[in-house]
Amino acid sequence: MDSLKQLTARLRRFVEERDWQRHQSPKNLVMALTAEVGELVEHFQWLGEAESREIGGDTKHAVAMEMADVLIYLTRMADELGIDLVAVAHEKCDDNDRKYPRDAFRGAYRRPDQDKER
Amino acid sequence: MDSLKQLTARLRRFVEERDWQRHQSPKNLVMALTAEVGELVEHFQWLGEAESREIGGDTKHAVAMEMADVLIYLTRMADELGIDLVAVAHEKCDDNDRKYPRDAFRGAYRRPDQDKER
Amino acid sequence: MDSLKQLTARLRRFVEERDWQRHQSPKNLVMALTAEVGELVEHFQWLGEAESREIGGDTKHAVAMEMADVLIYLTRMADELGIDLVAVAHEKCDDNDRKYPRDAFRGAYRRPDQDKER
Amino acid sequence: MDSLKQLTARLRRFVEERDWQRHQSPKNLVMALTAEVGELVEHFQWLGEAESREIGGDTKHAVAMEMADVLIYLTRMADELGIDLVAVAHEKCDDNDRKYPRDAFRGAYRRPDQDKER
Repeated sequence: MDSLKQLTARLRRFVEERDWQRHQSPKNLVMALTAEVGELVEHFQWLGEAESREIGGDTKHAVAMEMADVLIYLTRMADELGIDLVAVAHEKCDDNDRKYPRDAFRGAYRRPDQDKER
Repeated sequence: MDSLKQLTARLRRFVEERDWQRHQSPKNLVMALTAEVGELVEHFQWLGEAESREIGGDTKHAVAMEMADVLIYLTRMADELGIDLVAVAHEKCDDNDRKYPRDAFRGAYRRPDQDKER
Repeated sequence: MDSLKQLTARLRRFVEERDWQRHQSPKNLVMALTAEVGELVEHFQWLGEAESREIGGDTKHAVAMEMADVLIYLTRMADELGIDLVAVAHEKCDDNDRKYPRDAFRGAYRRPDQDKER
Repeated sequence: MDSLKQLTARLRRFVEERDWQRHQSPKNLVMALTAEVGELVEHFQWLGEAESREIGGDTKHAVAMEMADVLIYLTRMADELGIDLVAVAHEKCDDNDRKYPRDAFRGAYRRPDQDKER
């Protein structure tokens, strides 16, 4: 079974077995998602970019657990709204393939409507 | 092939084909993730909880596309850091199974260390 | 002396006395701001709207302290960038006075470009 | 009159003249604050730290306007909750003076409970 579908099903069962559905409105879930992203950001706020690539040990484990929380609330929200996350992500990727053609954007990190690189 | 692994591979190829790796440090990616979460929140900020469950049409499509952006940056970040998102999400779920035993928390929405319900 | 100018001066002195200026780039400060907003959101994520108006006691004090952190990082960032926060806030208020004329928007909570109320 | 008190009064009048109070619960306001912070972060996400100190022109004006929005929602939220933002910010500063004594932390950017510098 697909890993994200499996996670979605496990999370739904967890919530239903505790009768927590009424608390998990999309409005509340997007707030919980925000709070977890805030905890994730905290690990990176004083690091340089190079340092941020080299985290390890306890920091990396803590970061991984915060990222898991983000995925958990994102998955729950998608399930409550009946959205297939991976399908829309590929739709978005198709858009990006069109907006940022490989040859025009190689080495150039900018919006499609910008002349000069950011 | 697993859907999230497939998305991870597609996103990495997209970045590599454009030589964008040096911009996509975890520090920058967590900021991009934050910005997308902000756009997602904007759709829900003035809605009531019940309304937030009933979005449809253009709003639902826009919400789905923002959620896709969140998943895309989360997936990219996990790939840059070498983190298996679904595995850590299940690790987190195992923790939650222990912290919130079904029978003790049925109908009770509170932290494990709180006596009274929130 | 104006209260916000006084706070700005106190925060700058605090940072300078510890030689922390090089850590407090606008990029890092906006991340710290984000993390504090995440902690603030956490207090409200499972509350209903009516409940959110009635917080008191320890919760209210904790919320006040998180809001202080948000103000502190916002003030520091404005100082680093040479931005007069209150002046631009009034500029924004002037815009809003024009975009949302009182008589056209009384009781109607919507964007200027929306026909129907949100 | 103090600048922040003046802004608070102007914002309250704006909301009352349009009968918008019922939409501006603390729960909704903290979400609006989050969305504005997301827009602010977007300006900085791909910039290096040094670049983030040197923004100017249109970018700086856009950043200033986003920071104004953050201040506006923070101020509105404080007013709805009856919190004196500047007073609590000074309370927080007093805490920081105690937690980070000048001589022990000069040049050392770390939490009080950390032995080594971050």
